[in-house]
Amino acid sequence: MTEMHPGVAAQPPEATRGFRFNHSMLRVKDPAVSLAFYTHVLGMRVLRKLDFAEMKFSLYFLARLEREDEAPADAGERMAWTFGREGILELTHNWGTESQPDFKYHDGNAQPQGFGHICFSVPDLAAAVRWFDENKVSFVKRPEQGKMKNVAFIRDPDGYWIEVLQPDLLRGLGQPAA
Amino acid sequence: MTEMHPGVAAQPPEATRGFRFNHSMLRVKDPAVSLAFYTHVLGMRVLRKLDFAEMKFSLYFLARLEREDEAPADAGERMAWTFGREGILELTHNWGTESQPDFKYHDGNAQPQGFGHICFSVPDLAAAVRWFDENKVSFVKRPEQGKMKNVAFIRDPDGYWIEVLQPDLLRGLGQPAA
Repeated sequence: MTEMHPGVAAQPPEATRGFRFNHSMLRVKDPAVSLAFYTHVLGMRVLRKLDFAEMKFSLYFLARLEREDEAPADAGERMAWTFGREGILELTHNWGTESQPDFKYHDGNAQPQGFGHICFSVPDLAAAVRWFDENKVSFVKRPEQGKMKNVAFIRDPDGYWIEVLQPDLLRGLGQPAA
Repeated sequence: MTEMHPGVAAQPPEATRGFRFNHSMLRVKDPAVSLAFYTHVLGMRVLRKLDFAEMKFSLYFLARLEREDEAPADAGERMAWTFGREGILELTHNWGTESQPDFKYHDGNAQPQGFGHICFSVPDLAAAVRWFDENKVSFVKRPEQGKMKNVAFIRDPDGYWIEVLQPDLLRGLGQPAA
């Protein structure tokens, strides 16, 4: 199922067989704060941390797993499994930023713009909003605000925007009203 | 399988059941150029385009599909299916940027930093590099350059960095050399 628009290839070339959109990487100021947010508020799991002492940074690879035993226990196998699937979030920590009071990463929505947001889908948007409120999460936009109803935007600890939506409420998006 | 680090929740809270990391959004200057790149060079498919005429922007939702018939044909069902899965790339086109010669989005790696890159995993990194060369893709780093062997970084048409890796070559990443 490919919608045709200017520029679109009719079929994926054979040379791209097996390509997979694996992860998106965001730099974070304080990994303890970001890991608390992504593992508690959004329920992700840390699959692997890598330290690069010479270059003074660490990488954290996170995913939403359906089951505790989904990822291989062996560290090497788990690393290959992590890179072979979709839906991975990589957080990069450049050592020392967490102790600089004025240090702040750029969210991509203020100027200069580029990257916009990541998005989580949830089975029940109203319940998710209550959960975010319980956890004192900062909202860019609540579902009832703005033009796009049924879509919320929250902020992660670095200020990156996270869209939150409930898929079955958005079936009619982009279609003429009945 | 959750690695414990400062801040990490031991278990995903029950309130996060069914949450899914659905998509990442990047703004693009010229959708025809970006769609050619993502559907031809990376073999993605366009699942849905949404136009917001009043606000003068369009959204394109792309994914790597294993099979042509994986996504529902009905537009509403396909929209809900798109939002319910992982590995979606959303491209935002603010109308008119494509005709401004000096217009350029920010890649997040120059200052001010924030977002870093997206990543595709491929079954054969050497073959993927040949494919990128055939398609005159711009490299930030070839696999043999720099400290991280077996990892390439290419640029998309807006200059966003795309990491390219072969999962089974990275089993030993972060582990002491044997």
